[in-house]
Amino acid sequence: MKEVMCFIRANKVNDTKRALAENGFPAFACRKCLGRGKKGVDPDLLNVVLAAGELPLSPVGENFTEATRLIAKRFFTLIVDDRDVDKVVETVISANQTGNPGDGKIFVLPLLEAYTVRSGQPTVEAY
Amino acid sequence: MKEVMCFIRANKVNDTKRALAENGFPAFACRKCLGRGKKGVDPDLLNVVLAAGELPLSPVGENFTEATRLIAKRFFTLIVDDRDVDKVVETVISANQTGNPGDGKIFVLPLLEAYTVRSGQPTVEAY
Amino acid sequence: MKEVMCFIRANKVNDTKRALAENGFPAFACRKCLGRGKKGVDPDLLNVVLAAGELPLSPVGENFTEATRLIAKRFFTLIVDDRDVDKVVETVISANQTGNPGDGKIFVLPLLEAYTVRSGQPTVEAY
Repeated sequence: MKEVMCFIRANKVNDTKRALAENGFPAFACRKCLGRGKKGVDPDLLNVVLAAGELPLSPVGENFTEATRLIAKRFFTLIVDDRDVDKVVETVISANQTGNPGDGKIFVLPLLEAYTVRSGQPTVEAY
Repeated sequence: MKEVMCFIRANKVNDTKRALAENGFPAFACRKCLGRGKKGVDPDLLNVVLAAGELPLSPVGENFTEATRLIAKRFFTLIVDDRDVDKVVETVISANQTGNPGDGKIFVLPLLEAYTVRSGQPTVEAY
Repeated sequence: MKEVMCFIRANKVNDTKRALAENGFPAFACRKCLGRGKKGVDPDLLNVVLAAGELPLSPVGENFTEATRLIAKRFFTLIVDDRDVDKVVETVISANQTGNPGDGKIFVLPLLEAYTVRSGQPTVEAY
């Protein structure tokens, strides 16, 4: 099994949930986070954040602020069988790809063990 | 050392904290998240979430919503010595096992390095 | 590439953002979490948490509560090239080291794959 971490736009949560469920991956966790990539700020997301008043933001154009400003993002975690990693990655890309900077990143991490609390047993098959 | 990720019910945070502390594992991080497993929704948790008004939920029975509804869960992260992984897993299972779907999942991940910020040094022993 | 997880004090977020950006690491995610280490509670942070009314805290001196009390922390995630791991660790330590317990922990995890959603392609170079 592998852990798949996906950082996506806040306004893509529902599309991503739907796409994952429709492709056979209904099991995941979703969390709020703040983040940014190496490139400039996404103006669409910035407006959402400004409207929500979540972050104390300085005027655009102030260079240092620009370089360190954080954007409200969403963070999905899925644990999937090795054979399903590619399909999950494709599903998340399809649901989130707009072609603009800020679409997100997907990372795949190794997993050593998994347990189901209900049974108290290791999860060896697809969980 | 290993990272142990535990997704548990929101109402099991205090039991889990107590069990971990009593078994010699007082160091951990806890975060809110939304999530779901592959099976049906846990009605107990659903009622808690509904009462808290946290999520815009559709009427029960609407199939698609059912398949994509997210539940408020809690997410514990522990970093433990290799020799303690089994005991931590057992402790979390004992504190969370009700026998019903939704009890949670535990995942163990490899760790390459650890540092203590206070000393600025790598953490080689039990941290 | 590697994942670098940093648990730091809540009041060190801006210093950490600035230090990372100035050292060439503007890309990261930041999340709130609750946590604690193996040692006693940090009284400065405790006062912040108490003032914010975030946690139901029992009077200081009650031993069991002391052992399980959680502190509001912040959690940074960075994905960096292998050759940058040491510099990121040093940067986060420099920005957060006060010499007191509660300064934080840094953990480095292996990464198997990375994808850029915008391009739909694997990220092989520095992302």
